[in-house]
Amino acid sequence: MSNPTGAMLVIGDEILSGRTRDSNTNHLACALTAAGIDLAEVRVVRDDAEAIIAAVRALSAACTYVFTSGGIGPTHDDITADAVARAFDAAIDIREDARAILAAHYERAGTDLNAARLRMARIPEGASLIENPVSAAPGFIIGNVHVMAGVPSIFEAMLASILPSLTGGAPVISRNLDIHRAEGDIAGPLADLAARYPQLSFGSYPFQRSGVHGANVVARGQDVSALDAAMAELAEHFG
Amino acid sequence: MSNPTGAMLVIGDEILSGRTRDSNTNHLACALTAAGIDLAEVRVVRDDAEAIIAAVRALSAACTYVFTSGGIGPTHDDITADAVARAFDAAIDIREDARAILAAHYERAGTDLNAARLRMARIPEGASLIENPVSAAPGFIIGNVHVMAGVPSIFEAMLASILPSLTGGAPVISRNLDIHRAEGDIAGPLADLAARYPQLSFGSYPFQRSGVHGANVVARGQDVSALDAAMAELAEHFG
Repeated sequence: MSNPTGAMLVIGDEILSGRTRDSNTNHLACALTAAGIDLAEVRVVRDDAEAIIAAVRALSAACTYVFTSGGIGPTHDDITADAVARAFDAAIDIREDARAILAAHYERAGTDLNAARLRMARIPEGASLIENPVSAAPGFIIGNVHVMAGVPSIFEAMLASILPSLTGGAPVISRNLDIHRAEGDIAGPLADLAARYPQLSFGSYPFQRSGVHGANVVARGQDVSALDAAMAELAEHFG
Repeated sequence: MSNPTGAMLVIGDEILSGRTRDSNTNHLACALTAAGIDLAEVRVVRDDAEAIIAAVRALSAACTYVFTSGGIGPTHDDITADAVARAFDAAIDIREDARAILAAHYERAGTDLNAARLRMARIPEGASLIENPVSAAPGFIIGNVHVMAGVPSIFEAMLASILPSLTGGAPVISRNLDIHRAEGDIAGPLADLAARYPQLSFGSYPFQRSGVHGANVVARGQDVSALDAAMAELAEHFG
C-alpha cells in the first residue's frame, strides 16, 4: 500500500481523565479507510500548548494529512487554535471572515457576540476556514492540518465538508471470516497464507460468544481478486 | 499537580482501520485517575515494528509509566513483544517460566502447545511477567513499560494485577456542575474563577439534551476544600 496517510490528534484533558470517551477517532478511521487514506497514527494530548505544538509538528511532518479534534470553543481551556498557529510559526488574531460568520449566527439567535465568543474567530494567518453547519464557529486548515471541533456532531459535519477535498488512493477493502477454532490453531495456516499473499495484510481477533471460542480473521488490501482467493483458501482450510 | 505520569500505547491495525473501537484507553484513564497517576498521552500505532519501537522509546522517556495493549497473541501479526525488546535493546527468546505457564494451561485444556502458541512465551530478557487469569499467556514489564493484551477482559485483569505495584500521588478529585446557559456566557466568569483558583483545572463541555443547551463544567484538583469553594462560587453565580 502506498496510499496517502492520515494522523489524528485528539486534544483534551477530558479524554485523558476518563471523563469522556473519544468517538471521533473511530468515525475518522472508517471515513479515511473508505476514502483510500491510511490512518497511520493517533495521539491524544492534554490541553497544554507545548504538548499540542510538539504533536502537531511531529504528525504534520510524518503524514499526508493531520486531523485534530477538540479545544476550539469559547472557554479559557480552548487553546488549540493558538497552539496550532505557534506550531506553524503563524500569526493569529480575530479574522474578519470568521468574525462575520459568528456575528451573523449570533444576530439570528439574538445572542450577544461577547469577548469569549469572539475568541472563536481567532484564525491563524494563511489558514482557510472549515464550515460548521451546527454551531457556526469555524474550524480551519493550515498546511496539512485540519482543525476541527471535539463535539462529535460538529466534528462529523466538518469532516464531511472537507473529505471531498482530500486526495485518496485506492480504497483498502477488507474481508473477514469467523473461524470457530482456537487462535493458536489458526495461527500456523494463517502465517502460511500471509506469506503467499504479501500484497494483503491479515489480522486475527479472538472472540468468545455464548461460550463459543473462535477468531475473526480479517484480510485487507487493494487487490480484490487476491482478497477473494485468499479468503476462499482460508474457508476451505477451516471449512 | 506533580503526580507520576502515565502513557498508553495502543497497538493494532484494527483500531486504525476503524474495525475495532478501543475501550482499553478509557478503562486505563479511569483507573489511573483513581490511583493518583496522570495519564499524559495516548498513542495508537500500527502493527509495525519501527512504529512500535519509536513510540515505546518516546513514551518511556517522557512518562513515569507506560502501558501497552495489543499484539501479544499467537499469530504472525503479533509483534509487540519482539518490538518492545528491540526498543530496550534486550534479547528475547522463549522463556522457561512463561513456557511452563502455557504448558500447564494447555495440558489442563487438552490442547496442543504448538509452535504458534509457544510464541506467546517469548519474553524479553530481564522482564517480569504479568499474570493472565483469563487465558494464561502472560504480559510482561520491562523498564517502566507494562505490556498487556488487547482483548478488553484480559487487559483489565492484567491492569488490576499490576495497579497495586504502581506508586501514585494524591488522587485527582473532580466536581462537576451542569449549567443551563450557552457556553459563551459561561466562559467569562469561568475564566475569572480559573484565575482565582490556579491550583485547580477547569473544563467546559457543551451539551444539548432534549433541546436544552448547556455546558457541564468540570473542576479537577487535589485540594478538596478549594474544589468545594470554587464549585460553590460557580453555583452561586449561575444559580
